[in-house]
Amino acid sequence: MKILIKNASIITMSKDREIFQNANIGIENTTIKFIGDIEEGFNPDKIIDSKDKVVMPGMNNSHTHIPMSLLRNYADDLPLFQWLSKKIWPIEDRFTSEHVYLGSMLSIAEMIKGGTTAFCDMYFGVEEIARAVDETGIRAAISRGMMGEDSTNDSTFSEVRSLYRNYYGAAEGRITVMAAPHAPYTCSDKYIHSIMNLADELNIPMHMHLSETREEVKECLEKYGKSPIEHMEELGLFRFKTLAAHCVHLSDKDIDIIAKNKVSVANNPGSNLKLGSGFAPVKKLLDKGINVALGTDGAASNNNQNMFEEMNLASILNKALCEDTTVVPAIKAIEMATINGAKAMGLDENTGSIEVGKKADLIIVDFNKPHLYPRLDIVSSIVYSAQASDVSHVIVNGKVLLENYELKTIDFERIIHSVDKVTKNLY
Amino acid sequence: MKILIKNASIITMSKDREIFQNANIGIENTTIKFIGDIEEGFNPDKIIDSKDKVVMPGMNNSHTHIPMSLLRNYADDLPLFQWLSKKIWPIEDRFTSEHVYLGSMLSIAEMIKGGTTAFCDMYFGVEEIARAVDETGIRAAISRGMMGEDSTNDSTFSEVRSLYRNYYGAAEGRITVMAAPHAPYTCSDKYIHSIMNLADELNIPMHMHLSETREEVKECLEKYGKSPIEHMEELGLFRFKTLAAHCVHLSDKDIDIIAKNKVSVANNPGSNLKLGSGFAPVKKLLDKGINVALGTDGAASNNNQNMFEEMNLASILNKALCEDTTVVPAIKAIEMATINGAKAMGLDENTGSIEVGKKADLIIVDFNKPHLYPRLDIVSSIVYSAQASDVSHVIVNGKVLLENYELKTIDFERIIHSVDKVTKNLY
Repeated sequence: MKILIKNASIITMSKDREIFQNANIGIENTTIKFIGDIEEGFNPDKIIDSKDKVVMPGMNNSHTHIPMSLLRNYADDLPLFQWLSKKIWPIEDRFTSEHVYLGSMLSIAEMIKGGTTAFCDMYFGVEEIARAVDETGIRAAISRGMMGEDSTNDSTFSEVRSLYRNYYGAAEGRITVMAAPHAPYTCSDKYIHSIMNLADELNIPMHMHLSETREEVKECLEKYGKSPIEHMEELGLFRFKTLAAHCVHLSDKDIDIIAKNKVSVANNPGSNLKLGSGFAPVKKLLDKGINVALGTDGAASNNNQNMFEEMNLASILNKALCEDTTVVPAIKAIEMATINGAKAMGLDENTGSIEVGKKADLIIVDFNKPHLYPRLDIVSSIVYSAQASDVSHVIVNGKVLLENYELKTIDFERIIHSVDKVTKNLY
Repeated sequence: MKILIKNASIITMSKDREIFQNANIGIENTTIKFIGDIEEGFNPDKIIDSKDKVVMPGMNNSHTHIPMSLLRNYADDLPLFQWLSKKIWPIEDRFTSEHVYLGSMLSIAEMIKGGTTAFCDMYFGVEEIARAVDETGIRAAISRGMMGEDSTNDSTFSEVRSLYRNYYGAAEGRITVMAAPHAPYTCSDKYIHSIMNLADELNIPMHMHLSETREEVKECLEKYGKSPIEHMEELGLFRFKTLAAHCVHLSDKDIDIIAKNKVSVANNPGSNLKLGSGFAPVKKLLDKGINVALGTDGAASNNNQNMFEEMNLASILNKALCEDTTVVPAIKAIEMATINGAKAMGLDENTGSIEVGKKADLIIVDFNKPHLYPRLDIVSSIVYSAQASDVSHVIVNGKVLLENYELKTIDFERIIHSVDKVTKNLY
């Protein structure tokens, strides 16, 4: 399959952040073949005219729990622990694999419509998530969230092995696997050591919630005399390539540890605001050269999977925190949402920017809207004015998943019909 | 003209915040005739089926500068004063009445598409704004921003009188007029006294920027030994019904003054973040019973006119500031965006809620989207999940301005063609 995107303004997010005007992109099978002039002899099967549109890398949602779409708007505005213990966990206990699969399909439909081409997930029932990824054509790094005291008789370890065996590199290479100790407050040291052994065995990177709330940090200090970041460094977690989700409450020492160990941070501004967790010190992290990516977190705590919102928040929130308009400029926010996300998931050799030889993971944003006019600066427009709903086309691995706003690999009506059926007695 | 909206879920925002399921709304000419069961003998000219949709009052954007859409994304990420003095003001100096009119049309197109039914504006060239309001069918409270030392030979006073004479109560009653001393740092005390005389003469309320930045408050304290709020109270401004825009940097004493004088506050979270101004103490204001409304500010400082974003921010931002998920619950955020906005503009007898006898100013939100599924709580869904782009229908004063996502009173292609022409040598 050969696709030609023509007449496009292109935000490449290549190393030198090159921007093209009125240029072309050629895609052959899964890969970007050329950018700029049309290569001689290139005979496209499909032509997408992108006049009045902007082409950019797809959003990389670096931290979410996609089956939680079934819990969207189920319980809001409650104190955090009451929300989790009385509302969220009891329902999750009743989730079957069908719930996990359908919740995943619903979130993937939302993500594709909103321009997300890859995501990093932590949940249970992970082979159902992988099945949804396989079917829909999106890209994902999947992890099984693990919590416990003792790994003896813990079946989640075999779940991770099974996921790895059945799905690592599957779906034309669109699926990878990570190891995921859930959080310092839900895993004993012994248990984390078992997960590190597993990660060694499978040679996979780490994905963990760290320092999300003030309470978590306080309790960790009380229990171990160390912050969650310090404690994980001591346990040796950071000898693995690690993606740390949230990182809201950090000391300067924590930030130094993150920088020194080249840990990637998944900043989730929408979730951190909605759950009253606070404000991550994004400027300090960026100033230390840390790879800060963006995530939506699950739909129970956001309540959507909208990376355009996260990108906008990452920029404007940090300007207000620093009372400085120059903090997180627009191009930096796009970087966080695209190439930094790919790095955080360990996928940046293949995706996160529009470059010859990389996989064709890209989106087209339709600027023919009142709020995207006039077109004085397309980078500013994407971050400060555009909406997820402006995405008209999504291509992942060279395959068109959204065309003229229409999902090509998901039968949305069928999904919501099935969701209605399986959730009848759930809530 | 009689319109029947049927099969609707309705968030009325009436005093008891009544919510209807599977109900009907009858509109006769400009007015809501019934809610609930269809009145016997009601013979509609138009029926809008709202299955899978939510009907709610339109958004009331309580502070903006709509012609500034022409400056959208023209200059971002710059230090505030450099941005204003080197970028924004020089262009505004070159604005003709045609620029003001076309910028207004562009913003009104955006506002209608995003579910805004009324707005409160402060700018110059105000009769051009009024002309755009008249033509498009939206509702507005318009004010001429006034700055100066001495009112002698200041033509803006006659501009306000002319606006009042030509447009107050015009466009089927959709236009009202306010007096607008721009800010304490741009108006001398003497000048503000002249504006108060004008407001007495015309019997119109006040609209003023107050305490937007830390710098403004500091300078006011240095110059007058008083905060902007204290200073305005002393000048007697608050004997007029007043809408104070921004109110970011407030002392507890300021908040008491605002409460005592029943001043309405236009909170502009998006602009305050983007311009690095800071975080308004919304919870404290609400706790004192102050009427807090929401605004977008102009498109040069936001960079859109999207009230769904402001409503979402007003809720989640204040949860994070207070580290408390129960702060600004969803229904309160809708209140701020709708009925409180109407109160702030002095329009709440006619609009801001869906009630029999009020003007039919309402919007229909299309829930047939992945991010609005499942439908467990429509109030939460509107605030935490919905987007401005989910608005499918907008009715103002009983007239359909948006139908199935299509603008009915604005030829968008013609507007952008004209914008292209008049902005050719502007930037």
